[in-house]
Amino acid sequence: MSSDYINALLKKPTTRTPIWVMRQAGRYLPEYRATRKKAGDFLTLCKSPELACEVTMQPLDRFDLDAAILFSDILTIPDAMGLGLYFSEGEGPKFSKPLSTLVDIENLTKPNVGDELAYVTDAVSVIKKSLNGKVPLIGFTGSPWTLATYMVEGGSSKNFAKVKGLMYENPTHMHQLLDKLADTIIDYLNGQIEAGADSVMVFDTWGGLLNQESYENFSLRYMTKIVAGIKREHEGKTIPVTLFTKGGAMWLEQIADSGCDGVALDWTVELGDAQSRIGNKVALQGNLDPCVLYASPARIREEVKKVLSQFDGDTGHVFNLGHGISPDVNPEHMKVLVDSVHEFSAR
Amino acid sequence: MSSDYINALLKKPTTRTPIWVMRQAGRYLPEYRATRKKAGDFLTLCKSPELACEVTMQPLDRFDLDAAILFSDILTIPDAMGLGLYFSEGEGPKFSKPLSTLVDIENLTKPNVGDELAYVTDAVSVIKKSLNGKVPLIGFTGSPWTLATYMVEGGSSKNFAKVKGLMYENPTHMHQLLDKLADTIIDYLNGQIEAGADSVMVFDTWGGLLNQESYENFSLRYMTKIVAGIKREHEGKTIPVTLFTKGGAMWLEQIADSGCDGVALDWTVELGDAQSRIGNKVALQGNLDPCVLYASPARIREEVKKVLSQFDGDTGHVFNLGHGISPDVNPEHMKVLVDSVHEFSAR
Repeated sequence: MSSDYINALLKKPTTRTPIWVMRQAGRYLPEYRATRKKAGDFLTLCKSPELACEVTMQPLDRFDLDAAILFSDILTIPDAMGLGLYFSEGEGPKFSKPLSTLVDIENLTKPNVGDELAYVTDAVSVIKKSLNGKVPLIGFTGSPWTLATYMVEGGSSKNFAKVKGLMYENPTHMHQLLDKLADTIIDYLNGQIEAGADSVMVFDTWGGLLNQESYENFSLRYMTKIVAGIKREHEGKTIPVTLFTKGGAMWLEQIADSGCDGVALDWTVELGDAQSRIGNKVALQGNLDPCVLYASPARIREEVKKVLSQFDGDTGHVFNLGHGISPDVNPEHMKVLVDSVHEFSAR
Repeated sequence: MSSDYINALLKKPTTRTPIWVMRQAGRYLPEYRATRKKAGDFLTLCKSPELACEVTMQPLDRFDLDAAILFSDILTIPDAMGLGLYFSEGEGPKFSKPLSTLVDIENLTKPNVGDELAYVTDAVSVIKKSLNGKVPLIGFTGSPWTLATYMVEGGSSKNFAKVKGLMYENPTHMHQLLDKLADTIIDYLNGQIEAGADSVMVFDTWGGLLNQESYENFSLRYMTKIVAGIKREHEGKTIPVTLFTKGGAMWLEQIADSGCDGVALDWTVELGDAQSRIGNKVALQGNLDPCVLYASPARIREEVKKVLSQFDGDTGHVFNLGHGISPDVNPEHMKVLVDSVHEFSAR
């Protein structure tokens, strides 16, 4: 299987710019909402390999996407560590047993990926079989820093007072926590790779809330450890790894030095500017503003053309939004996006 | 009156690095909470010049701050335009009559600052008298783009779907709205300057959510118009103007080209890096992570020292947090912050 998506990340020739979309299997699709309803709740959907496969495949049936991404949640690891993940309607993820003392951090143990997280690697296997080589499958994880924010705050947060307070006041415990998470993530991504993931991505949703020194010490350092620890070659294939720090455009040079293959960008930086800063060291993923999908098809096509024209070169660009697709987007607009990327980038 | 705060913004010699803190008159102070309770609600507090003066003065009585800032809200202008500003507990600002059609935008008329917004200029006069020359008074406004987001969304927003949809789909109407706001803001800031404001600041809270092209066209363009339109010289004094785009670190070069005197920074960019990018063109304000105030006094002092050491030069730096002080911060920690900035920066 030769894939534009994998080739773009490895800077090999491509036939056109590949595209996939963050949260492409999501609430904007009526068939997703139906499967989720059938599952009962979001976590059951994540934990049922057959249902996770069903929703992973849905956007591929509708759109000419160049990659599939495992349907899962970024918080599976802390859940497997015993923190009790649950979702309360309209409020996002929560933990029933957040890390509330330093002793909680000291007592935290690495879960056995092949056991507590078998439902994830099982989902990878089922999806891989269902894909049948059509497009590559992306595995993923949250970054250690991002997982730590949820584990310490107990859920989403407005100003990250607890986790940042811990970081500033008890950096040693913070490092202990991040190190345990990084080690677990290495096992977790390797499990996904062994089960068939063709590429992996690390989502650092909250790294952009740090200052530069803290970003380097508490987020990027552990993503770099992960990049170094995972199987980049498996069964004769190179497994590219992409890092995404939302709001991390200031630190592109440092991220590109991590050893990763691809850097995903939100829409606040132009691809051409990113290229002029980091050269050809890594491939770039991104970076249309997701809100463009609220505009008309004609406007979507114009904005797609703009993003494509900002990238200089025939490979090394994976098109995507700069953040997940919103639940209230018209699926027809997603089709316009995917098709126009292919139309305007045919070599 | 020679003021380190004004001198730093104008790059004249200073005796030490001046400091003020965004939301220094705010909920972290028990005396503020008492006055707000007395006022009944937040908007009444803003609209009563005597009470607005009372809370403006409170942090100056406690801390050795180098400037006072008018107590008001960024949404006074849309309120004066008839949108009906109100605050629902725990949900932030809302408008009872948001802009929901293109005709709403066409029909929007510029309020008369001397009439509908007289309570703001009255507050400036009362505060100015109360300050009695002790420290300079900062006047302020929200940026046109930031005001427009609230006016179109009807309040705070998660992904700014409506206002960005309008921007992408109907740029002409978006520009019409922003132009009306910029013209009103020029009158508004000039009214504050005539009433006694020694310096003014434009808060672009949501400019950082745009991509570069949209930021330049829909946010920075109108702030530049404001910078050109306000009275920079008044009664023999130079009135410095500071722009603050939260999340705007990528665009420092462009912001510094606006003609402003100072650029405020959030904590995601280091002062030294900002200086190396924009040279001595403007003064810099910032940029300690507000969450540092959750740490111990010893750690706060260390982090203050770090920020001070990142700035190269004896003038041109106004110390501040990179965002407003959080309501749950210990006021004693604010004292540590203010005193350590002065201690470590004495020339």
